[in-house]
Amino acid sequence: MATYFITGSSRGIGLALATLLASKSDVSKVFASARSETESVKNLVSESNKKVEFVKLDVVSQESIKEAVSQVEKSLGGKGLDVLVNNAGIMPWTQGGVEAMNDLDEVFKVNVVSVQNTTAAFLPLLKKGSLKKIVNISTTLGSIARAQTYSIMSVPAYKISKAALNMLTVQYALSLADDDFTVVALSPGWIKTDLGSANADLTVEEGTKAVYEAITRFSKEHNGKFFNVNVPGWEHAQGTNQYDGEELPW
Amino acid sequence: MATYFITGSSRGIGLALATLLASKSDVSKVFASARSETESVKNLVSESNKKVEFVKLDVVSQESIKEAVSQVEKSLGGKGLDVLVNNAGIMPWTQGGVEAMNDLDEVFKVNVVSVQNTTAAFLPLLKKGSLKKIVNISTTLGSIARAQTYSIMSVPAYKISKAALNMLTVQYALSLADDDFTVVALSPGWIKTDLGSANADLTVEEGTKAVYEAITRFSKEHNGKFFNVNVPGWEHAQGTNQYDGEELPW
Ligand SMILES: NC(=O)c1ccc[n+]([C@@H]2O[C@H](COP(=O)([O-])OP(=O)(O)OC[C@H]3O[C@@H](n4cnc5c(N)ncnc54)[C@H](OP(=O)(O)O)[C@@H]3O)[C@@H](O)[C@H]2O)c1
Ligand SMILES: NC(=O)c1ccc[n+]([C@@H]2O[C@H](COP(=O)([O-])OP(=O)(O)OC[C@H]3O[C@@H](n4cnc5c(N)ncnc54)[C@H](OP(=O)(O)O)[C@@H]3O)[C@@H](O)[C@H]2O)c1
Repeated sequence: MATYFITGSSRGIGLALATLLASKSDVSKVFASARSETESVKNLVSESNKKVEFVKLDVVSQESIKEAVSQVEKSLGGKGLDVLVNNAGIMPWTQGGVEAMNDLDEVFKVNVVSVQNTTAAFLPLLKKGSLKKIVNISTTLGSIARAQTYSIMSVPAYKISKAALNMLTVQYALSLADDDFTVVALSPGWIKTDLGSANADLTVEEGTKAVYEAITRFSKEHNGKFFNVNVPGWEHAQGTNQYDGEELPW
Repeated sequence: MATYFITGSSRGIGLALATLLASKSDVSKVFASARSETESVKNLVSESNKKVEFVKLDVVSQESIKEAVSQVEKSLGGKGLDVLVNNAGIMPWTQGGVEAMNDLDEVFKVNVVSVQNTTAAFLPLLKKGSLKKIVNISTTLGSIARAQTYSIMSVPAYKISKAALNMLTVQYALSLADDDFTVVALSPGWIKTDLGSANADLTVEEGTKAVYEAITRFSKEHNGKFFNVNVPGWEHAQGTNQYDGEELPW
């Protein structure tokens, strides 16, 4: 019976993942964290028969992280946490491209420093867990090797932050390999959320199902790597929209 | 006759590069910038017959960058700047590895945000230059693909910042390709500076000569790539100490 902690569960992929996990019989607890308890989170919690617990968490605040860890620790009553999903993220558009970018520091704080601080704070609980998985939600836009492909997307701070997140992921993977951890960067595919827009390839349900399947599939051999989700019907799509579950280039 | 601007010229590679450039007959001006005018910079300037000009620049301050650009603009008297070398950087050691890292934000500011702000501010002058080169001093420690090789080096914030710098480099390369720019990330090799330590492979002179040769060799075909320096005698060295001038993996 696994326990999960998810950041950014107010909406989008985080909310959908918490909802999906709540329906699984081998999941005992889902900590759905968010800056505020949205109506959707409230409903999910109340319909979950105590399986889903809301945790207030603003990932850019160390104080907030500390309080979240302490709530989770209390709730687990001495048991460990199995899976941490660092999902919270922002993707601000930059009018004028990289030359006009002035939000690099802020985006880095939300998309990278927050993951560092959240992960470090939850590590003692994760070390007591049995699955020992840390899944950082990255993106193919963070692949330096693929940068040309996405040059039209004017989100330079986002791309830079996700490349940095990938390196952070690998640093944890190397550091925790001997403790039997699986630390991976996962690109969820292009999903119809507020961030992904209505033009995206996948519905929130399709995309989140693929994210869930990837998370459960990951094991030690995937440690320190960067993966695409696998979505039936999209394995052989062209170029950027190929969701074949394979490794992505850095 | 080329003009150069170098950040972090108080010591190490930056100082040695300014010194080497001052001796070249096809270089008309070297702007050696640093937070303070060290004794070595003072000497270099006074012995250079006005070829080297000191520019006060703290790369983490937007105000300081603005003043530096305005001094350079005045000094060039309507001409453009040919080459910008973003060299300033820090590599703090983290006791306890990535799990104990609490300087990510600060290192990111010095090693990445500063490069963004400096580059954006000098772009109008660079666009008027004839060589149109931007060289970001990166490192093989910033290669995500090579992370395992360097796992013993407990400088996680540095590694993450340089991976981010690589993505920033590529964003500029893509954005400026049509303006005939060459924007590259260059790993200078392991050099005996304060940062590199006395255990490093190359003397400051050897390493800086290789950096200089790489900078002059770079042309449009290198745009958006990540290179090693080329040091005779080290081309066929094993693994991490191979300085063969070839492309490095992201
Ligand atoms: N959708 C896609 O196509 C796509 C593609 C690739 C990668 N991703 C990645 O997937 C992850 C989730 O994205 P999404 O599409 O679900 O985006 P979304 O619908 O915009 O949701 C983003 C989530 O992050 C939360 N968040 C932002 N800043 C936060 C903070 N300081 N503290 C706590 N939570 C914070 C938001 O909370 P609030 O409601 O409080 O703002 C929200 O819950 C992101 O990391 C994103 O980069 C998405
Ligand atoms: N040495 C190596 O083996 C090696 C290997 C790979 C990459 N690199 C890269 O090469 C570059 C130069 O390193 P180095 O070996 O010459 O190091 P160094 O001897 O420690 O010199 C670092 C330089 O950066 C400057 N600097 C730091 N923060 C600054 C700021 N806020 N504003 C302006 N200048 C600042 C320092 O100025 P102050 O004197 O004012 O502190 C100094 O001039 C760095 O980007 C480094 O990452 C070096």
